[in-house]
Amino acid sequence: MTTPQSPLFKRVALIGIGLIGSSLARAIRLHHLAEHIAISTRSIDTLDKARALNLGDSYSLDPAEAALDADLVMICTPMGAYAAVAKAIAPALKEGAIVSDVGSVKSAAIATLKPHLPEDTHLVPGHPIAGTEHSGPEAGYADLFPGHWCILTPEAHTDLAALDLVARLWSACGANVEIMTPEHHDQVLAITSHLPHLIAYTIVDTASTLESHTQKEVIKFSAGGFRDFTRIAASDPVMWRDVFLTNKSAVLDILGRFREDLDRMTRAIEQNDGDALEDTFTRTRAIRRSIIDLKQHIPDTKPNGGANGGPGGKK
Amino acid sequence: MTTPQSPLFKRVALIGIGLIGSSLARAIRLHHLAEHIAISTRSIDTLDKARALNLGDSYSLDPAEAALDADLVMICTPMGAYAAVAKAIAPALKEGAIVSDVGSVKSAAIATLKPHLPEDTHLVPGHPIAGTEHSGPEAGYADLFPGHWCILTPEAHTDLAALDLVARLWSACGANVEIMTPEHHDQVLAITSHLPHLIAYTIVDTASTLESHTQKEVIKFSAGGFRDFTRIAASDPVMWRDVFLTNKSAVLDILGRFREDLDRMTRAIEQNDGDALEDTFTRTRAIRRSIIDLKQHIPDTKPNGGANGGPGGKK
Repeated sequence: MTTPQSPLFKRVALIGIGLIGSSLARAIRLHHLAEHIAISTRSIDTLDKARALNLGDSYSLDPAEAALDADLVMICTPMGAYAAVAKAIAPALKEGAIVSDVGSVKSAAIATLKPHLPEDTHLVPGHPIAGTEHSGPEAGYADLFPGHWCILTPEAHTDLAALDLVARLWSACGANVEIMTPEHHDQVLAITSHLPHLIAYTIVDTASTLESHTQKEVIKFSAGGFRDFTRIAASDPVMWRDVFLTNKSAVLDILGRFREDLDRMTRAIEQNDGDALEDTFTRTRAIRRSIIDLKQHIPDTKPNGGANGGPGGKK
Repeated sequence: MTTPQSPLFKRVALIGIGLIGSSLARAIRLHHLAEHIAISTRSIDTLDKARALNLGDSYSLDPAEAALDADLVMICTPMGAYAAVAKAIAPALKEGAIVSDVGSVKSAAIATLKPHLPEDTHLVPGHPIAGTEHSGPEAGYADLFPGHWCILTPEAHTDLAALDLVARLWSACGANVEIMTPEHHDQVLAITSHLPHLIAYTIVDTASTLESHTQKEVIKFSAGGFRDFTRIAASDPVMWRDVFLTNKSAVLDILGRFREDLDRMTRAIEQNDGDALEDTFTRTRAIRRSIIDLKQHIPDTKPNGGANGGPGGKK
């Protein structure tokens, strides 16, 4: 984590000030990465909260006002608002301004933003792989990004100086920056994040349709593995709705593979095929080992949880 | 956690000395719950490890030898070995001996053990909802059970004094004891533990069939939600094979409901039905809240992880 001598940007506009936007505001302030932080959000309540938290230097309900004269406009709204935001800020953008975002689906981000932006705008889409199950400006914190990846997905012709500036912003906030194509990002995230979330939402929904007595016991004995699913399934509903609508093809593709694999497991159980089950359960250990090897795994201070094997309470 | 004045049992035999058996041995020793701990396991390597760890007072490859004159025989093997163990110990059991177990499926445990045991044996099946993804005698620790449930599933005619002794054993080890019917246990665990494990194994297996370049990135960016699944999917393959083979009907029932719900989610994505997605994602928050209310949830020291919402590294 570096603290540059002079700020990277004169004026940064943050459009949307939820968990990610407000964490970014705090990190930018903490590391002196901008002379001026302009904040815009469409809800007056949220804007008041941001002001009360002293997250920025100016506040506006009009994204164009925040974007005016900004070197960097960072869009931190749910993806469903991207078109409206891009349309609104376009006339206000100064020549050569950088527009970036933090959305979870990069092909759709580019497809939605680009048509509205002036030719001379540098679009540098990004996605910090960081978050919690909490939302809103009060949920953010400056230390959200260290130890996490931020993936930038420039296009072939993206201005390298603009790309470099956005990469330096994220590095200064503590993130590890990785660059890949938007399409590849969307494929990788479909399996590492979107499918796990869809499955978690689904299994918790399945539990919610059980008769009330059983449902109470499911909650009581959730440490057997279910509890971890509920944590994922408490994430922001609007954000996740937009993820599945915008990464539809990659999600449906990996979902199709998963459903085939689940059919195979179901058949193995139906047919009492213990060998097939044991083979699969053994094979999956290798992936776990690779994750530990890559130091992606942060060890538990105390193992606990599942029925002879499941995860349980997180520390 | 209580430390009784005099041990609850003169002689406890532990058949199987993996994660749960060895944790129980350590807890029994720590809390002075038995005068003598007799350990048996069918692998000479494992028995040597147990001896080197000084987990018991006597060691034998023959379960009958360990069970001889025991007040309590606790079966801690994978469920696939239950029939052989019951057959082997039956002739050695003293009159009125208690036989208990720690298996994850209780109807099947009773159905397998009971036919082999003498009429005067008190069968008190149990299931500690505690574990880690590690296996073997060296993975156990005395403090595995505090803060976790141990469910006992007696039959209608089970001797209450025997039930009380087993309940006191688990309470003394720190577990919260709950009593329910075997059938109800198996239904509840099918959704809280068995289905989450099956799904976790399946999604990790799906990832393992991706082309090698993508697979590497899945491992690298696993913090988006996938990493938590890999932890569950590193659990003991033989134990889990037996869970699905022995709780077949409850698992297939809940799996059927889950597959229907997943079909509904898939259709919502295919048809761009954002309202249906958002409704489901909002509904699942209530279950999460109930779990927090029940203090089942152990808060993270630091939120982190998923793409704007997923779980990440556990502390």
